[in-house]
Amino acid sequence: MGSDSILFQEIHEQPEVIERFAQKEQKAVQRLAASMRNADIRQVVIAARGSSDNAGRYAQYLLGACNRLPVMLTTPSLFTVYQRPPRFAPNTLILGISQSGKSPDIVSVLGEGKHQGCMTAAITNSVASPIAAQAEHIVGLSAGEERSIAATKTYTAQLFAIGLLSAHLAGDSERISTLGQAPTLLRQTLALNSDVARLAERYRYMRDCVVIGRGFNYATAFEIALKLKELTYTLAEPYSSADFLHGPVSLIEHGFPVLIVAPTGALTPELKEFVKQLHSRKAELLCISNDEKLRQMGRCRFPLPHAPEWLSPLLAIVPGQLFALHLAAARDYDPDRPRGLRKVTETR
Amino acid sequence: MGSDSILFQEIHEQPEVIERFAQKEQKAVQRLAASMRNADIRQVVIAARGSSDNAGRYAQYLLGACNRLPVMLTTPSLFTVYQRPPRFAPNTLILGISQSGKSPDIVSVLGEGKHQGCMTAAITNSVASPIAAQAEHIVGLSAGEERSIAATKTYTAQLFAIGLLSAHLAGDSERISTLGQAPTLLRQTLALNSDVARLAERYRYMRDCVVIGRGFNYATAFEIALKLKELTYTLAEPYSSADFLHGPVSLIEHGFPVLIVAPTGALTPELKEFVKQLHSRKAELLCISNDEKLRQMGRCRFPLPHAPEWLSPLLAIVPGQLFALHLAAARDYDPDRPRGLRKVTETR
Repeated sequence: MGSDSILFQEIHEQPEVIERFAQKEQKAVQRLAASMRNADIRQVVIAARGSSDNAGRYAQYLLGACNRLPVMLTTPSLFTVYQRPPRFAPNTLILGISQSGKSPDIVSVLGEGKHQGCMTAAITNSVASPIAAQAEHIVGLSAGEERSIAATKTYTAQLFAIGLLSAHLAGDSERISTLGQAPTLLRQTLALNSDVARLAERYRYMRDCVVIGRGFNYATAFEIALKLKELTYTLAEPYSSADFLHGPVSLIEHGFPVLIVAPTGALTPELKEFVKQLHSRKAELLCISNDEKLRQMGRCRFPLPHAPEWLSPLLAIVPGQLFALHLAAARDYDPDRPRGLRKVTETR
Repeated sequence: MGSDSILFQEIHEQPEVIERFAQKEQKAVQRLAASMRNADIRQVVIAARGSSDNAGRYAQYLLGACNRLPVMLTTPSLFTVYQRPPRFAPNTLILGISQSGKSPDIVSVLGEGKHQGCMTAAITNSVASPIAAQAEHIVGLSAGEERSIAATKTYTAQLFAIGLLSAHLAGDSERISTLGQAPTLLRQTLALNSDVARLAERYRYMRDCVVIGRGFNYATAFEIALKLKELTYTLAEPYSSADFLHGPVSLIEHGFPVLIVAPTGALTPELKEFVKQLHSRKAELLCISNDEKLRQMGRCRFPLPHAPEWLSPLLAIVPGQLFALHLAAARDYDPDRPRGLRKVTETR
């Protein structure tokens, strides 16, 4: 049932979406990077909801670590409900990220940014949308229409756009060339599909779980948790491994499912310790990692191809998407029509 | 069992903790506000974990709406694991919030802020701690030792400190005088105790739930969810009502428990719509509100005394604390010793 869905198709379109983006949108990204340098942008304020907000979370780490920019995920209600927006410093970029380009709250944040004289930009799959209309710079996603309600190809296209923006902003040709390998790496990751379909069976009756990620993959934990909620109605809560130890770890009892997003990188030693601790408490561990030892501690294992940690969120989301798809199928839910959702959610 | 716990005592100490804070620490808050004005502080970066991070979330809205300051909740791993901290603008205040004053990651963020020449401040219950040692300005909480592992009186003291800082920074004597009523309002809210103990019985077998809040009370939703996780091992996930509609609303089915934090204010019309929507999907609604009509839509109702919306988080947390305490007792858990937690969590 999962494999004949639109969602399955769109998950599998991701390598070509990225290839198309690199061809068609690279110039727009370069222009935005050049304008940011010319305007001496010193901080970035991101307005987004849902999956796009998770892409914003990736930007928070990537632009922080690689471009040393403070990135703030903003609070739209200050702009809309309270009508008391913060006053931004003049060298601030206000960046709206939205698949549909339609959410009124994101439009408000961009409008206020423009009113305050800040540079504005939009990353959106709909370049003829109200959000694009508010922005000085527009980066289209060229992902084609996303027909499933759950965002997949637009999310990875957003991550790729942010990766390319960060690399061009730093003038880092090595990272630009590494990004060129993303479609191949994505194809390798998609080869997991039939394994994931088999592994998902075990979780047919899982009611709730925790999804752990930190640093660059904090975003991945949020996005996987969102897919599990939307598609499988599992109460999946995302957490950083550090925050999890400040209280929520008390949830863990024999068999409690914890999905860990742990591609190798600066966090590997810490995540190994964390996984050991959960293992000793007899949690049911599901590991997404390219580190074999770490993966071995998991009852359920999703291997990843090797990639630099900063690029890994683009790959690590894929087993999460596939897991949510096949778990929905294992539960006889229609992955293309989650209950109670529409494609465009307009919030203020 | 709940009522003879240390946690019960500490929840009930909150009015006097606030009174003591107003007497002993008001000068320190005034000094910090004066220094922020002198240094022309234009943005605030907050570093915190757990309950203190939730107090930071309140600061994000309060300093935003009432002082028009952009407030960023920082990502400690950029400072510690990746050692690539963002570069802050010179007129940034780096504010560490911590009950124990000991978490190494918060120490690192303050240290880096000092190194970059930013103003630094700490709000902590331990003025002789490593975090206090890194900060130019220290606001002690004077809450007395917090013996329970779950933070309660230090959380409300942090909210009060932030409320007072915002009011002094704006030179808003009306808000300063309103804050003087907080102990009385807290005592009125604590009178809910026996009702909450009775209502908690119904949720003996609740495994998971969602806690909704937005704007000023987004922080309250996070803090109630954290108490429920720590003390009752319920997988309670906090959400803003707007974000919830972007996907997670698909979780809702007949009887799914949703706790709504909805004191009256700018959000009331929106939250009423939201509650109606969940009501029509037959969610089990628990309402914390001073709006009677809104409360009537709930199966379980926690009334609040009237207060301005910006002050309401100080009161709205109390029924949440009591609910977590009595639910732990209803499940024969020891509220003073949640499994697997220690009072001081040191993360990097």
